[in-house]
Amino acid sequence: MNITALIMAGGRGERFWPKSRKSLPKQFLSLTDDGKTMIQLTVERILPLVKLEDIYIATNKDYKQLALEQLPGIPEENILCEPVGRNTAPCIGLGAIHIAKKYDDAIMLVLPSDHLIKFHKMYLTTLKEACRIAEQDSNLVTIGITPDYPETGYGYIKFDPHETEGMAYKVDRFVEKPTLDVAKEYLATEEYLWNSGQFIWKLSTILKNFAQYMPDTYKRLQRIQAAIGTPEQDLVLDQEFHAMGSQSIDYGIMEKAENIYILPGTFGWDDVGSWLAVERINKTNEFGNAVKGNIITVNTKNCVIQGGEKLIAAVGLEDLIVVDTEDATLICAKNSAGDIKKVLENLKICNRDEYI
Amino acid sequence: MNITALIMAGGRGERFWPKSRKSLPKQFLSLTDDGKTMIQLTVERILPLVKLEDIYIATNKDYKQLALEQLPGIPEENILCEPVGRNTAPCIGLGAIHIAKKYDDAIMLVLPSDHLIKFHKMYLTTLKEACRIAEQDSNLVTIGITPDYPETGYGYIKFDPHETEGMAYKVDRFVEKPTLDVAKEYLATEEYLWNSGQFIWKLSTILKNFAQYMPDTYKRLQRIQAAIGTPEQDLVLDQEFHAMGSQSIDYGIMEKAENIYILPGTFGWDDVGSWLAVERINKTNEFGNAVKGNIITVNTKNCVIQGGEKLIAAVGLEDLIVVDTEDATLICAKNSAGDIKKVLENLKICNRDEYI
Repeated sequence: MNITALIMAGGRGERFWPKSRKSLPKQFLSLTDDGKTMIQLTVERILPLVKLEDIYIATNKDYKQLALEQLPGIPEENILCEPVGRNTAPCIGLGAIHIAKKYDDAIMLVLPSDHLIKFHKMYLTTLKEACRIAEQDSNLVTIGITPDYPETGYGYIKFDPHETEGMAYKVDRFVEKPTLDVAKEYLATEEYLWNSGQFIWKLSTILKNFAQYMPDTYKRLQRIQAAIGTPEQDLVLDQEFHAMGSQSIDYGIMEKAENIYILPGTFGWDDVGSWLAVERINKTNEFGNAVKGNIITVNTKNCVIQGGEKLIAAVGLEDLIVVDTEDATLICAKNSAGDIKKVLENLKICNRDEYI
Repeated sequence: MNITALIMAGGRGERFWPKSRKSLPKQFLSLTDDGKTMIQLTVERILPLVKLEDIYIATNKDYKQLALEQLPGIPEENILCEPVGRNTAPCIGLGAIHIAKKYDDAIMLVLPSDHLIKFHKMYLTTLKEACRIAEQDSNLVTIGITPDYPETGYGYIKFDPHETEGMAYKVDRFVEKPTLDVAKEYLATEEYLWNSGQFIWKLSTILKNFAQYMPDTYKRLQRIQAAIGTPEQDLVLDQEFHAMGSQSIDYGIMEKAENIYILPGTFGWDDVGSWLAVERINKTNEFGNAVKGNIITVNTKNCVIQGGEKLIAAVGLEDLIVVDTEDATLICAKNSAGDIKKVLENLKICNRDEYI
């Protein structure tokens, strides 16, 4: 069966400000030393498994040009523009009906555009095994990450260690971001994995699940599908998408569906959630600094310093994040990385949209 | 007797990098909230006492244009360019012979160009009293600052508390920068003041002292004076200045001369020795931050942040100095301010002269 992919790239993350902006969100940034953007890396990783013309990008019209520029091999008609953000379920549905125009049935990989994978070969092995399981019956497959610590920022997936299919486990339930105490309990049971937001299923399977668990959305998706290629295409898409409820695939389908399997990923996953991740994923120098650009450090250690051509001199610093862009510089204590959003709130209140 | 002034403005300080550069040293920078440069403030302070056309600026040719631009009322011929830096004695001598071309005798104020004074009226009262004492006999007058703490970066002046002339004391001796223990002893005696590098004397007095204690320099100064207004003026200045020894006025004359008086200054003096001074001399906001420019602070306190148009967002910072310029940004822990010179050393080694 053909393997296709839908890469979700509509996010407008704020945690990489000032490099990320409304006009240039995280998935279109390069945060690694190799200079490639997150979405370029995402596409590159799956190329041994999926042909370029079978890769679809779901984003919004503001980012269509960026996607075309950064991913020159992907056909323009594969860049799907959501008229409005309606969370992951409508987004995945939109991808599915477009792919269904091309293939009667196919495997569909659903992948975030802004995560990093360290071991590519192992990742492909995992995806292949996921495809094998997804081809059987009406299985829905997801990839879970073995938790390193009781993270409270991710969703978790409970599996049944006794019910297996190859290396995968039957899923008991999807759970929302837990409190720290609950996360600790999850880890203690050894029966919870992190939800990495990666799904593998047949087109026919996911569409059947839409019909069953999200009938209104399914009906609207069918109308959108019928209009593809007609003069009303954009109008219908716009109307029906606006009319859909905002719903995550986790809540809309995965928490209700049967036959869900989870494959534990062992390929070194990182969601690159904040500037702190940059020192985790890039080489740090002998003093523990992750530096990029025109930087001089004097007695400076464990700092993330990301600049460009402008000279940045760091003297006597420790545990700081410094990010320099054309029009804005962020200087942030590592343990205050969560407060970067307060800068953006401040900018919004003051109508300083040029910086957002 | 006419009062004239020589403002010494040849310094090439590195402690205000990256704002100060070889091409724009501290005296030509604005470090106060009023936007005026240090040398502009120096001139402005003495205007009630000295006519603009009687103010002379000793600097070098690289800064002549800066001086003319920043001090438009001062005649071009009053900007004296030292061909080479030879410390304060030759500089003061050069000023003296130029003033002596205009006046048979006059009071000469000798002032640094890069210090700050808080109470201007009190400062003028002090200068007037200094002039009164300098007019008598062959007195040399200097202004001392009552030490707040045992600073090891300044020279000290020992006075005799029993020998007074008005509010001034007879000077026993000039001493170099002491160790901390010695500085503490000085403070304990209550007979030492900081040397602020400000002198007041008659032209005739200082020239007589040059003749007596620095005869070679005096001879060369006479040659320079004789050539003023002739076609050989520049050539003679260049030759004789290069041939002079490098000597401070303290060591060359003040440590040897008789009849030196010191007036304690009570006018709020600051030598603005480093970026740390900026928070001392400028208003700090409620969190103790001294900010200038386009700055957003979140949970940030006791920081000096000096920028321009570019947005600087400071998040969770404490006790840092941030200085942003067109081509370079400094981020420095307050207790590492002394290490800024290491950045400059690094730049010199790497031949990155554009930043120096």
